[in-house]
Amino acid sequence: MATNSFGNIFRITTFGESHGKAIGVVIDGCPAGLELSDDEINAALALRAPGNSPFTSKRKEPDVGEILSGVFEGKTTGSPICFLIRNQDHNSAHYEPIKDLVRPGHANSTYIQKYGVFDYRGGGRASARETACRVAAGAVAKKVLAHYCVSITACLKQPTEDQLTHVMAEGDSLGGIIEFVAEGLPCGLGDPVYEKLEANLACAMLSLPATKGFEIDAGFSCVSMKGSEHNKLPSGTLGGISTGKPLIGRVACKPTSSIKIPQATTTLEGKPATFVLPEGSRHDPCVAIRAVPVVEAMAALVLVDALLLNRCVRL
Amino acid sequence: MATNSFGNIFRITTFGESHGKAIGVVIDGCPAGLELSDDEINAALALRAPGNSPFTSKRKEPDVGEILSGVFEGKTTGSPICFLIRNQDHNSAHYEPIKDLVRPGHANSTYIQKYGVFDYRGGGRASARETACRVAAGAVAKKVLAHYCVSITACLKQPTEDQLTHVMAEGDSLGGIIEFVAEGLPCGLGDPVYEKLEANLACAMLSLPATKGFEIDAGFSCVSMKGSEHNKLPSGTLGGISTGKPLIGRVACKPTSSIKIPQATTTLEGKPATFVLPEGSRHDPCVAIRAVPVVEAMAALVLVDALLLNRCVRL
Amino acid sequence: MATNSFGNIFRITTFGESHGKAIGVVIDGCPAGLELSDDEINAALALRAPGNSPFTSKRKEPDVGEILSGVFEGKTTGSPICFLIRNQDHNSAHYEPIKDLVRPGHANSTYIQKYGVFDYRGGGRASARETACRVAAGAVAKKVLAHYCVSITACLKQPTEDQLTHVMAEGDSLGGIIEFVAEGLPCGLGDPVYEKLEANLACAMLSLPATKGFEIDAGFSCVSMKGSEHNKLPSGTLGGISTGKPLIGRVACKPTSSIKIPQATTTLEGKPATFVLPEGSRHDPCVAIRAVPVVEAMAALVLVDALLLNRCVRL
Amino acid sequence: MATNSFGNIFRITTFGESHGKAIGVVIDGCPAGLELSDDEINAALALRAPGNSPFTSKRKEPDVGEILSGVFEGKTTGSPICFLIRNQDHNSAHYEPIKDLVRPGHANSTYIQKYGVFDYRGGGRASARETACRVAAGAVAKKVLAHYCVSITACLKQPTEDQLTHVMAEGDSLGGIIEFVAEGLPCGLGDPVYEKLEANLACAMLSLPATKGFEIDAGFSCVSMKGSEHNKLPSGTLGGISTGKPLIGRVACKPTSSIKIPQATTTLEGKPATFVLPEGSRHDPCVAIRAVPVVEAMAALVLVDALLLNRCVRL
Repeated sequence: MATNSFGNIFRITTFGESHGKAIGVVIDGCPAGLELSDDEINAALALRAPGNSPFTSKRKEPDVGEILSGVFEGKTTGSPICFLIRNQDHNSAHYEPIKDLVRPGHANSTYIQKYGVFDYRGGGRASARETACRVAAGAVAKKVLAHYCVSITACLKQPTEDQLTHVMAEGDSLGGIIEFVAEGLPCGLGDPVYEKLEANLACAMLSLPATKGFEIDAGFSCVSMKGSEHNKLPSGTLGGISTGKPLIGRVACKPTSSIKIPQATTTLEGKPATFVLPEGSRHDPCVAIRAVPVVEAMAALVLVDALLLNRCVRL
Repeated sequence: MATNSFGNIFRITTFGESHGKAIGVVIDGCPAGLELSDDEINAALALRAPGNSPFTSKRKEPDVGEILSGVFEGKTTGSPICFLIRNQDHNSAHYEPIKDLVRPGHANSTYIQKYGVFDYRGGGRASARETACRVAAGAVAKKVLAHYCVSITACLKQPTEDQLTHVMAEGDSLGGIIEFVAEGLPCGLGDPVYEKLEANLACAMLSLPATKGFEIDAGFSCVSMKGSEHNKLPSGTLGGISTGKPLIGRVACKPTSSIKIPQATTTLEGKPATFVLPEGSRHDPCVAIRAVPVVEAMAALVLVDALLLNRCVRL
Repeated sequence: MATNSFGNIFRITTFGESHGKAIGVVIDGCPAGLELSDDEINAALALRAPGNSPFTSKRKEPDVGEILSGVFEGKTTGSPICFLIRNQDHNSAHYEPIKDLVRPGHANSTYIQKYGVFDYRGGGRASARETACRVAAGAVAKKVLAHYCVSITACLKQPTEDQLTHVMAEGDSLGGIIEFVAEGLPCGLGDPVYEKLEANLACAMLSLPATKGFEIDAGFSCVSMKGSEHNKLPSGTLGGISTGKPLIGRVACKPTSSIKIPQATTTLEGKPATFVLPEGSRHDPCVAIRAVPVVEAMAALVLVDALLLNRCVRL
Repeated sequence: MATNSFGNIFRITTFGESHGKAIGVVIDGCPAGLELSDDEINAALALRAPGNSPFTSKRKEPDVGEILSGVFEGKTTGSPICFLIRNQDHNSAHYEPIKDLVRPGHANSTYIQKYGVFDYRGGGRASARETACRVAAGAVAKKVLAHYCVSITACLKQPTEDQLTHVMAEGDSLGGIIEFVAEGLPCGLGDPVYEKLEANLACAMLSLPATKGFEIDAGFSCVSMKGSEHNKLPSGTLGGISTGKPLIGRVACKPTSSIKIPQATTTLEGKPATFVLPEGSRHDPCVAIRAVPVVEAMAALVLVDALLLNRCVRL
């Protein structure tokens, strides 16, 4: 069912586990004629890299990848673009002691129940590391959008650095909110009924690890407004179709599940146990920080897809 | 691009405009062997019908449809099920005077810009009337789920009836929140990475007219929690896969755009104008009321699809 | 899995059984702005209707349908077009006596094994009647193509009318070959790798009942040619992409399975039995005759889809 | 539009050009729990490798690839499997002199017209080299099928070795026919209406480079048969659904376009020119020889997909 793919016309397929040999993405449907280089994608990856902030985990891996296909003489050819990142820093031994425990807030237990097997090293396929592939693909999407004067920027709305310093000292973690704005969108992008722009954005954002909510425009705050009031607000979409005004969305991230405080849990068989984060394992006190460029990337993927699809709606 | 379709294995395609000849849905992929009758679907539609509450619009149309295909001797055959509802109460003349105005909060302007044409009668394809088809399909989905002991219930969390009485007297409208709970879900439904259960639910909910936000579990409230606190909460999904615990989601609806108060607007060409809701046109002070069974239906569609798809994951 | 749908951008979904209430098709993705009326589609259906030739079955049903949605003031709106044909002439009692027999060359036994149930009346979903929906959709596709000066014509290459007279007198049937030609195609339609034009045409044709083969250009005759000879022939596609030259294909149809001669068979439980075609049941001595407009329709559906999709390949 | 993907549940996406850095395939939807190693896939690739026969081209490249993801402790995990083959033997300078010529029977001219650019080195994306990825994925599909006692074997039916020796001496080429047989298929695989087993097989085979026709069962020979005669033949499918009997198909391949005889052509701008195959460039006198394992692979991909999808059809 291509559950590792996203998008219709501009469609990505990602693969790879956190501590496997490599992760990567295949971009199918990128228009031909776009100038593209390894460096541009690697620059986008650098923004997501751990260690950019005092509040992100210490994995030193540079996340440098290479384009394997789909680019010829510096331009896209219309053929699928594979971008591959070899994994380097994977000391999987850390994960051995905890492989039989239910990790609080983690996917290992559901994966095991679903598949009967789980690559437990570093979260395997469920790791946030998969989002590097989204950022790589998003860099390409953003470049196509830029060609049409569409830009997307995201930022962390919450928490503050003070709150982070505090929670980090406790070995604990905090949730967060990321906001993105797309500007320069022409009117008419997005499709009725089930491919409304906000529907695809919602899907994109909730497909990210650790996200728990999405809202567009005034979002949840509109539930207490009156129509006479709300109708006056600018709206990024109407009927699922872009209005030409800035499109604003927000994503809610839960607090990082991996914390330095020991937690009560069970073994996979259900016996009580204590979960202690392995020595040397990475720890982000707030996943939302590193998710900022990923949110940007996902928004770009949705919008570029809508942009291309919109070419087909009129005779 | 099948933008009027939803789902993978259990897949619906809807058609029809508010004031056209009929609306309908084709359900492809419903398992064979399910007992199904017109009456059951019509009973589900009755719950969504206008006039059930003092706060819903007065369109008297009974919304009675018929199964045209896919059922033989009272059981589904595995062939596509078409359910058709003929439109009856459509006095489209109401809409003639406003056809050249930008309707505040409505999709007519974006549709016209996208397609160069818009069936302006009653909102056309963008009308909430399309959701009757979702409820019809959802009734079938719920019946399949019930066979596997999965139930879904939704309710209006906000506003109160007092607030509604107030706003109705003013000719104004209010937003609202709908909450749904899915119970009895086995562990293991939902698929990494881009078909996470919450991603598909988010897409489903934001594909509904007038929705502005979606959240799962603690949702936006988790952004201020600590990991040590949040990890203790029950979670309907982990890594996008159902845990076996109740799955809870909430949907934010904006206030109804059509209000009885005259509003400043422009013509489609951009000249200033006043928008006055046509005499006799329907008016719901809170769209969230009638969206409750629709939210249930959409949740059911997502879950039945995940249930079927989950049969393919192991050797 | 949407197994009753065909196409990507211009996508059809068909429903309905031969002797059910109705058959129909939903066309999603037809460009907005196309003039379209019931009459045009019904005219296309009339060409497929039984009774047009002395060699086609006598079902008198006029096959008149109506557009239920997606057309406003005589033009397509970009919303899904549902075209519905009510069934009229369905004396299902004919089929009662044979419902427990394996019908030679028919799908009833495989459907029952697959689904545990089969709407045996007139072939149910497996009936060639479903192809009326393809013709209806094909009429719309052909109109879009005509707008771009692309035309498709099909004809019966084999058998001759003499052969048919002969075999009809025997109560037997014959296979046949249908050839189609698409002219006016621009260069560049069709997509590597798995959406090659000939791949989608092959899929389209082999999805028709009773077809056993498809070939493009010189087809099977090229297997005995030398490269120096074959390279000189005109080719409708190269690398799956249209060359701008006429595109020619041929479809092989098996002889009609329903013949007037009694045949040895078994019951569904496996006991020996004799299959006798019910009195009054329809009988075409050569299914290929009525398949001619259906082949045209399927070719049109593939080509219109490729035409639209081709808008997305360049920056 | 994911035109480089094939399949629904068991879905492959291929990437890479003949003379680029690498080619590869991502398999999404392979059931968890299948034992799988690099060696098994490489063994399948070895069967397709050039140089296995006196009649295949001399590219010495060993085609050894590696699994990058989706396998943990020797078993598939349900996560996407990426298999990557680095290109080694690519002397692209050969292609420089002919880059501005229309290559007779080749896709370079249509690609350029479609995309405005073409990676001309060795045929780029249009090269038969892409089929190595299909063989790799087919090896996995065949292993899943073997688990359910389904086997597929293909062979070259035409031409003879004598014919090949002859044509090779002339520097010319010949077409060919490949036949495959699937045995052990349970009854019930394949889906009405547009996902009939033969429709998907036809699509699979015509998506291969140089193929011009596909037939199932008696194929084109049935067009001269009578119903009374044809109904007695065993049939691999009825109504698009497997019968449980062996399923037999045949694929027609055109003669290799690249021949050693100089040919009249034009430049891409349309001026007359002579096309001479570059010194040292590979030359297969009959592409059908190396296509045998590819046909097997494509049949396996179709059948494994049908096998998995069939799990969803009943309550």
